[in-house]
Amino acid sequence: MRMYDLILKKRNGGALSGDEIGFMVKGYVKGEIPDYQMAAMMMAVYFRGMNEEETLALTMEMAHSGDMLDLSGIHGLKVDKHSTGGVGDKTSLALAPMVAACGIPVAKMSGRGLGHTGGTIDKLESFEGFCTAMDTKRFKEQVNRIGIAIMGQTASLAPADKLLYALRDVTATVDNMSLIASSIMSKKLAAGADAIVLDVKTGSGAFMKEEADAFALAKEMVAIGNGAGRKTVGIVTNMDEPLGYAVGNALEVIEAIETLKGNGPQDFLTLCLTLGSHMIVKGGKAETLKEAEDMLKEAIADGRALEKMAEFIEAQGGSREWVYDTSYFKKAEYEEEILSEEEGYVSRIVCDEIGICSLILGGGRETKESVIDLSVGLILHKKIGDPVRKGESLATMYGNDRAKMLAAKERFLKAYSFSGKEVERPLMIKGVVGA
Amino acid sequence: MRMYDLILKKRNGGALSGDEIGFMVKGYVKGEIPDYQMAAMMMAVYFRGMNEEETLALTMEMAHSGDMLDLSGIHGLKVDKHSTGGVGDKTSLALAPMVAACGIPVAKMSGRGLGHTGGTIDKLESFEGFCTAMDTKRFKEQVNRIGIAIMGQTASLAPADKLLYALRDVTATVDNMSLIASSIMSKKLAAGADAIVLDVKTGSGAFMKEEADAFALAKEMVAIGNGAGRKTVGIVTNMDEPLGYAVGNALEVIEAIETLKGNGPQDFLTLCLTLGSHMIVKGGKAETLKEAEDMLKEAIADGRALEKMAEFIEAQGGSREWVYDTSYFKKAEYEEEILSEEEGYVSRIVCDEIGICSLILGGGRETKESVIDLSVGLILHKKIGDPVRKGESLATMYGNDRAKMLAAKERFLKAYSFSGKEVERPLMIKGVVGA
Repeated sequence: MRMYDLILKKRNGGALSGDEIGFMVKGYVKGEIPDYQMAAMMMAVYFRGMNEEETLALTMEMAHSGDMLDLSGIHGLKVDKHSTGGVGDKTSLALAPMVAACGIPVAKMSGRGLGHTGGTIDKLESFEGFCTAMDTKRFKEQVNRIGIAIMGQTASLAPADKLLYALRDVTATVDNMSLIASSIMSKKLAAGADAIVLDVKTGSGAFMKEEADAFALAKEMVAIGNGAGRKTVGIVTNMDEPLGYAVGNALEVIEAIETLKGNGPQDFLTLCLTLGSHMIVKGGKAETLKEAEDMLKEAIADGRALEKMAEFIEAQGGSREWVYDTSYFKKAEYEEEILSEEEGYVSRIVCDEIGICSLILGGGRETKESVIDLSVGLILHKKIGDPVRKGESLATMYGNDRAKMLAAKERFLKAYSFSGKEVERPLMIKGVVGA
Repeated sequence: MRMYDLILKKRNGGALSGDEIGFMVKGYVKGEIPDYQMAAMMMAVYFRGMNEEETLALTMEMAHSGDMLDLSGIHGLKVDKHSTGGVGDKTSLALAPMVAACGIPVAKMSGRGLGHTGGTIDKLESFEGFCTAMDTKRFKEQVNRIGIAIMGQTASLAPADKLLYALRDVTATVDNMSLIASSIMSKKLAAGADAIVLDVKTGSGAFMKEEADAFALAKEMVAIGNGAGRKTVGIVTNMDEPLGYAVGNALEVIEAIETLKGNGPQDFLTLCLTLGSHMIVKGGKAETLKEAEDMLKEAIADGRALEKMAEFIEAQGGSREWVYDTSYFKKAEYEEEILSEEEGYVSRIVCDEIGICSLILGGGRETKESVIDLSVGLILHKKIGDPVRKGESLATMYGNDRAKMLAAKERFLKAYSFSGKEVERPLMIKGVVGA
């Protein structure tokens, strides 16, 4: 078999066999297939696409290119959740304790943030002393003991995907549905869950700006998951405005805690309940989504979800008191209101710009080496559909550097649009694929 | 400027500016742009194409990536000829002395063969002592003295094209019209001629199997040539069967000599007269193609063309006697008739298979390092339209290795198809572009 022939086949619109994809991925990881041939292949895939079998084969090859996490030592059906990323997305922080409190074992690997979207691991490190570096033995032991553990992604998780993604990133071959789907799913499959609930975001703050693209991606990923024998469902959700009100690491942690206390923003709570219900049903702890949702609401109402978070934080080196008293979290030095210069109903928020404001304040990584300022960020007061008077505060900005705050403020104001007429609030849940 | 953005632009169907193409080619030659980005770009070009401006800009950049040969020291209008390559293509061997005899200065750079098509330089080396390695000073001096010189391509001729072609060759991005055209024309422009006559071959022995593709390529190259200020014409010619009867280095040289003596095969003579007429008109030595053709015929009839070849061979280290007595050429040890196992009219010859037979016999290069056996090859006796009886000889095969001859013979027989009905002989000249 020669890589040249595979490139030619794909270029001419052919479908690669499982053997051919295996040859290609294994050869690339071993360094036997050079970057330039793989780059030509990725561009050919960009133009020709891959069918369902090819996409599944690629995903499986990448998943098996490193260690496959074996979660069989953990009792019960393990259900993983994955979000394609957005602004203010603190979902895992609230959702993991919620479903764990309902008996779903949460054995989750999470990543750090890059660019304008934050990472769960970064956010969790707002808890002083919190640690996500652990071996899989301790990881599994903790899940069996308290029902929840979150660890950082290991280097041995789908190394083929890491190599391929890095190449795609510099050759303008990232945005192909099959390649995006296989990249995400290879890591999910390697992470070992029995079932997977995917939160596929769409809108101005999401990778998938168009709703149709988000549904297409959800469909691809669900096909891969089911094809790989993992029960998978994809929920397409709104990312035309930040999720909840808080954007920034510690600020988002606090909002997640408030949600577990029953004081969460409506849109964020809706998302958690929807994703959580699917997780509980997939995990076999409820028959219907309605029943599952009631379980989640009860876990919040009676404090079990909050207590589960406290247990979890304590188990991984943080202090459980912080969950009950959020004044422990480090605060930014300066606090400033961003006052509206216009009036009307908020009609549009260029959502990734809000993420970039947080990045400018120091809350995100511009490069992999950047150090994050966990205390900075924004608390929005106005979202789409809200009426605003001139001079009214759109958001409170938290920062440690006046110049950066000025730059962020200017950018923030430009991200908002207003209308003289009433504006409908966006729907959080756009649809479900593969339920 | 970033190569990433250029790849993205081309991928999305945009046109690259002259500056962008300059950045790309210069950066690639310097090693600042990695192979993998160029490979992705080439595949994007394969799918998106390049417009006339882009193709011209790419060609000019590649031409200027090395030395531009300055032929201004040579008196008169220099007219170059280029063939896209085929089987039995000994055109330069006869045509160069023919037009030189008519007063067109021939200052030609030629290449070696690779694969099933031979190279002019290899063929010329059938003359013992013949040498094509010379500096440009001696090259120009020889043209001024006797009107003709052929040298090997220097390493500094369009090095960007060499690099890019080698990359395209291993990434399945060779067969794009703009890239093929710019590759050929970059070398022609760098080689310094004032006018260029292109022989674009089409058929089963040509790179362009389809006539429409050959016309498209001719059009692209003519546009480049004229865009670069060189008067350019493209002649689309038949390559559905070998040119003339001889295939193999020394055998082809002898056939070219015979043509200069007035004993050439009709198809080959027609091609030489057509290309030569255009060269003479472009070179300003005749007003009309008819007038030019008469000049060429006269140069053959009165022996000036043959004598020009003798002068040329002598000037570059060979022996002029060989031109007048071809029995000097080294002969292969074995000679065998290939007898037809069928009967009827020859209806089809898979022409590149005949080239491969010569390659198998040892007459071509499988890799750049292969040593060529100049004595081997085939003399066809039957071409398309000829009636054949069972047991009649289709060709005489010349070889030095019985096993290779057996393999070549089997392959040769499979390349011929026969019909019970009369078959029309193919037309040599399919059309002219840009005259």
